Amino acid sequence: MGKEKKLVEAITSMEEDFTQWYTDVVKKAELIDYSSVRGCMIIKPYGYAIWELIQKQLDQRFKETGHQNVYMPMFIPESLLEKEKDHIEGFAPEVAWVTHGGEEKLNERLCVRPTSETLFCEHYAHDIQSYRDLPKLYNQWCSVVRWEKTTRPFLRSLEFLWQEGHTAHATAEEAEEETINMLNLYADFCEEVLAIPMIKGKKTDKEKFAGAKATYTIESLMHDGKGLQSGTTHNFGDGFAKAFGIQYTDKENKLKYVHQSSWGVSTRLIGGIIMVHGDNSGLVLPPAIAPIQIAIIPIMQRKAGVLEKAGELKEKLSQTLRVTLDDSDKSPGWKFSEHEMKGVPLRVEIGPKDIEKNQAVLVRRDTREKIFVSLDELEVKVNQVLQVMQQELLEKAKNHRDEHTYTATTMDEMENQLKENPGFVKAMWCGDPACEEAIKEKTGATSRCIPFDQEHVSDTCVCCGKPAKKMVYWGKAY
Amino acid sequence: MGKEKKLVEAITSMEEDFTQWYTDVVKKAELIDYSSVRGCMIIKPYGYAIWELIQKQLDQRFKETGHQNVYMPMFIPESLLEKEKDHIEGFAPEVAWVTHGGEEKLNERLCVRPTSETLFCEHYAHDIQSYRDLPKLYNQWCSVVRWEKTTRPFLRSLEFLWQEGHTAHATAEEAEEETINMLNLYADFCEEVLAIPMIKGKKTDKEKFAGAKATYTIESLMHDGKGLQSGTTHNFGDGFAKAFGIQYTDKENKLKYVHQSSWGVSTRLIGGIIMVHGDNSGLVLPPAIAPIQIAIIPIMQRKAGVLEKAGELKEKLSQTLRVTLDDSDKSPGWKFSEHEMKGVPLRVEIGPKDIEKNQAVLVRRDTREKIFVSLDELEVKVNQVLQVMQQELLEKAKNHRDEHTYTATTMDEMENQLKENPGFVKAMWCGDPACEEAIKEKTGATSRCIPFDQEHVSDTCVCCGKPAKKMVYWGKAY
Repeated sequence: MGKEKKLVEAITSMEEDFTQWYTDVVKKAELIDYSSVRGCMIIKPYGYAIWELIQKQLDQRFKETGHQNVYMPMFIPESLLEKEKDHIEGFAPEVAWVTHGGEEKLNERLCVRPTSETLFCEHYAHDIQSYRDLPKLYNQWCSVVRWEKTTRPFLRSLEFLWQEGHTAHATAEEAEEETINMLNLYADFCEEVLAIPMIKGKKTDKEKFAGAKATYTIESLMHDGKGLQSGTTHNFGDGFAKAFGIQYTDKENKLKYVHQSSWGVSTRLIGGIIMVHGDNSGLVLPPAIAPIQIAIIPIMQRKAGVLEKAGELKEKLSQTLRVTLDDSDKSPGWKFSEHEMKGVPLRVEIGPKDIEKNQAVLVRRDTREKIFVSLDELEVKVNQVLQVMQQELLEKAKNHRDEHTYTATTMDEMENQLKENPGFVKAMWCGDPACEEAIKEKTGATSRCIPFDQEHVSDTCVCCGKPAKKMVYWGKAY
Repeated sequence: MGKEKKLVEAITSMEEDFTQWYTDVVKKAELIDYSSVRGCMIIKPYGYAIWELIQKQLDQRFKETGHQNVYMPMFIPESLLEKEKDHIEGFAPEVAWVTHGGEEKLNERLCVRPTSETLFCEHYAHDIQSYRDLPKLYNQWCSVVRWEKTTRPFLRSLEFLWQEGHTAHATAEEAEEETINMLNLYADFCEEVLAIPMIKGKKTDKEKFAGAKATYTIESLMHDGKGLQSGTTHNFGDGFAKAFGIQYTDKENKLKYVHQSSWGVSTRLIGGIIMVHGDNSGLVLPPAIAPIQIAIIPIMQRKAGVLEKAGELKEKLSQTLRVTLDDSDKSPGWKFSEHEMKGVPLRVEIGPKDIEKNQAVLVRRDTREKIFVSLDELEVKVNQVLQVMQQELLEKAKNHRDEHTYTATTMDEMENQLKENPGFVKAMWCGDPACEEAIKEKTGATSRCIPFDQEHVSDTCVCCGKPAKKMVYWGKAY
């Protein structure tokens, strides 16, 4: 029982120590393990199954919108990385360098890709000639490396899994449209599948991607009131095209530069799921992303007929849902705790008395609500409950975010709000990076985004008092 | 028309120069492109779509047999790689070393994984305690790096995509069973999906994996008579377990070492598909692995009703098949050539005369056979033809292999056969590595495998004349 016990041992409560709670959950829900490679995590079967479900559902949305998957080399020669000036400046401090192949010292260092703009650009320069070749709507699923000093599973690690879309278009308008479309696709996916509400907006110049003309972002609020940048899309204009010479002849046979975008989400989304939905019993997974949607727990399973009936239910429900039947010799109580720790959305209990009454007991992971259901309508009811749960998790997360979103018109107000009850603070900004810096120094909050949905909070910049240009979401962030 | 023309330009004929034919096909069928990273390829959308179909179908077979996907770090600290002596000796000459993270020089070099035994072993040592934790049946899909001197797309490259299974078992018997089961799974997959017949057998000690007790292999014969090692499975016994201290307590509470296996196939399989099925018009793809199974080509498409009818057919066939409708303004002849180059299994032609007769014309990619089909039974017929084609491609490949498989009882015989008409040579072997070396020097052939299906070719070793122990398949190989 050593291992079972460990799994259901109490975890640190979120209220006591949110950071420790998070670490406990990722370990005890068996999402990851550590390795001897600093800052790199092992994604265990249960964690990887969540990533596979994210991949599958996102990939389908990418393909439905005309994108194609490719695979680029994982190495980038130093000279190639250096071609776009802002890009190399942004990434040089955080790349891993390969200097030797076997015994031989390389003539030119290769970096392990931190992102692949330069490789896509080199390929596009070679592959695009005419307007007939446009648009190029490529994506790749891969791992990338960024040499971070401090790391946390899923949230910030030396190596992480992600997808990176890289597109090339004939006009600036098309590139901008793609950049916004992909942001919307990400936000819809996060809300519909992960049940995480997103604020969509633009990054300030200080926070934008190295080499981008504009970076857009989806921002979510975690349970502890910190923000999580959950996905970004970048409009490069023709900056990379000029650096790499990506030109095409248009219908009038004129030579033009392409306009480009890139966009990515990563395993970081799993961190978001944990910190938005989890509670003091462990993970809570939205049904759409749960590797196990239903755990059937037989009660008094040694009594005649119980395991048979539980097996029948499993077979029936497995036709459309991801179901497990736990017939191990642990006690039902242990099993409840284990599946709660793993965030399984719905538990189905079935024992001798239930069989007598031709019923089963459903228990929702999030609310613990008990629902008695006739076996005749089990499938219909289970699907209904899962749908409702998916919806209510999103609503709950929205409510939490809205309750932790404040407005501020002065620095003191902002500082106090972030100290007393952390969350997002909506405040006006003059557009000066110096004010952004000053706000960070005083409150610890960074600009999360300039939201598309602008509101008028006050006339003047929360920091300098000069006329305000934009309303900005500020917050402490992961 | 610049690009179209390039695509359907004649490729080098296989008979003239097989190597150049291969290079032409991978480029002109738009499977890959080169990059500025030596020895690394860009897998383009059409090539990647083939890999996705391989992944999807193999992954399903892995999961049906109880395997789970995980993700391990891409870096291996030098000290970890060194833990198993044979393993490091085998791989050290061909790994890429990361020595710097950002500006900082690392205390310990990290290699980019050439394979991940050491990482899985470290994890298992930590994660396995009791017999209840066994077996562990893990797999990962990732890219690996081996610092090869000479490279060829799909067949041998610095970086390639693959899956690597790594399992741990309570007993030697279970580990051996897994090793054989996975070999059979690979062979079945290759025959049923890729239409490539495989010879199953064991590698000689000289050819086995660094650190393995036994390596098993599936070997196929390419059109030019060279062999391709298409997948391998390794039984490690308890060698790695002892080096890494992977122990468990059994039911009697005794401490025991686990027994392990690993197994992998890679994008190399795509090279096999090309070289087994391709012809002088380009790729030929078995329907089960073709990203596009049917290309509908409208004839005289400007005539009223043609494109509408073609669209109808597309919609109908798309419900169960992967279908494209080429309504571009290229001539039908161009379109035929393009889709032939890309190996699309079946072409469906539909023109005004066909519509009048309520028929369509099917043309098989492999045989060019023309089949006139009533539109009323199009779906049924198309599915039949694809099934027959899948089967006949396998039979054709089997016949080619059998016609190019010889027996030899003397070195001269073996040498002459390999020179005149390359293929596999079945010949007896005494078991001495010195003979294996001598055969390689004289004929250029290596031992492909000691097949499970043993035959008695002669009493004595083809090389030294001493009593023979085993019949071996010999051949030149990629």
